Amino acid sequence: MPSAAPAPAVICTVDVVLLTLRDGALQVLLARRERAPFQGAWALPGGYVHAQEDADAHASALRVLREKAGVRGPYLEQLATFSGAGRDPRGWSVAVAYCALVPPGWADGGPEGGLEGAAPRPGVRWAGVEEGALPDLAFDHAAIVRAAVARVRSKSQYSSLPVYLCGETFTLPQLQAVYEALLGEPLNKVSFRRKVEEMDMLEPVPGAVRGGAHRPAQLYRLRDELRSRYALSLSQRGL
Amino acid sequence: MPSAAPAPAVICTVDVVLLTLRDGALQVLLARRERAPFQGAWALPGGYVHAQEDADAHASALRVLREKAGVRGPYLEQLATFSGAGRDPRGWSVAVAYCALVPPGWADGGPEGGLEGAAPRPGVRWAGVEEGALPDLAFDHAAIVRAAVARVRSKSQYSSLPVYLCGETFTLPQLQAVYEALLGEPLNKVSFRRKVEEMDMLEPVPGAVRGGAHRPAQLYRLRDELRSRYALSLSQRGL
Repeated sequence: MPSAAPAPAVICTVDVVLLTLRDGALQVLLARRERAPFQGAWALPGGYVHAQEDADAHASALRVLREKAGVRGPYLEQLATFSGAGRDPRGWSVAVAYCALVPPGWADGGPEGGLEGAAPRPGVRWAGVEEGALPDLAFDHAAIVRAAVARVRSKSQYSSLPVYLCGETFTLPQLQAVYEALLGEPLNKVSFRRKVEEMDMLEPVPGAVRGGAHRPAQLYRLRDELRSRYALSLSQRGL
Repeated sequence: MPSAAPAPAVICTVDVVLLTLRDGALQVLLARRERAPFQGAWALPGGYVHAQEDADAHASALRVLREKAGVRGPYLEQLATFSGAGRDPRGWSVAVAYCALVPPGWADGGPEGGLEGAAPRPGVRWAGVEEGALPDLAFDHAAIVRAAVARVRSKSQYSSLPVYLCGETFTLPQLQAVYEALLGEPLNKVSFRRKVEEMDMLEPVPGAVRGGAHRPAQLYRLRDELRSRYALSLSQRGL
């Protein structure tokens, strides 16, 4: 922590990589920049920390998502901080980057929230995260997207993170499809179910099944403790 | 990224959790604060980002370690960023926290660098990371230490990170002792060696053994690619 010099002029922002699954592939939300620098270019939704208003950078990220993309209460975690003299023409800058996940329908204005009105808003679009699908982005935002995608894919190998790309309840085949989309390969059904059991992250929704009478599928949701972590994120949305 | 408002006054610092193994347990380097706030209290080595001097926050962290602790070229990775209105009495602040690892002898001024002169310097001390061993720390530094220790312990379960707590070369029993200290439990020798082989992170040092003629032990080091990652960290120390 500081001891001597006065605080230098450092630009402090948050930038959010909002990811969802569309057409079976990861997509990221982009916002067109209305002002210089990089006016007119696509960028991650982001903005200055508002010291008078935001309790911390997590709150800044939720505010940015709400204001710029109309997204409320997503799963949100800190990704990493990108900093230095070279990344913003206005000066030495620190961007605290966050990664947010929403289920597909939800992000398009589903019943539980999502993009306000019809998606996408003007000046906002979804783009595939693969090279070729992603347009040129302002600042070092392409590197931030790459870091977020790598984090989500890596965590898909050992954590419940992909569940946040499902709705609140889902069948095991639906969950498997999400993992397969993230890992980019088909998974063996038996091994997948064994792994899900080992991770001990789901509970069946009592009495809830999806599908016809012929092959009804049990609906699942995150276990209580994990849902409360999610609820914490929801409660931090400042509504 | 910003589009409209001027940058608000946000304090931007780096703080470094420098960890090593001493007496078979994780210890963290603390520096006594010379000025308010928290004058006289123990804190993590840290300081303002120097926008004129540091290429990025990683460089700030290396500079802080060099200036405040005399430590040069440690393994260094970004931990997380701690922010908000409540953590620093001077105002809304962003602390980019880093985690650094050094082998024990090295940190006490070994042949490869380490603390300059005799360790510890005045105003600098090592402390155990366990509750009870750690003194009261300034700011939210106790939470930062907890996050760093959790990260290192968690990564010890699946990565080569603990190798950075060994010297440049080491025997497998020495490496096992480091993993055991981090995980807090004895490991089965056969399973440990199988896991190390699976991780494919080590190579034998040709012709190098430690110990007497009776039971000589092969010396190992990180494989080339991993060592170059470390070397990258070394080259970023700005010397």
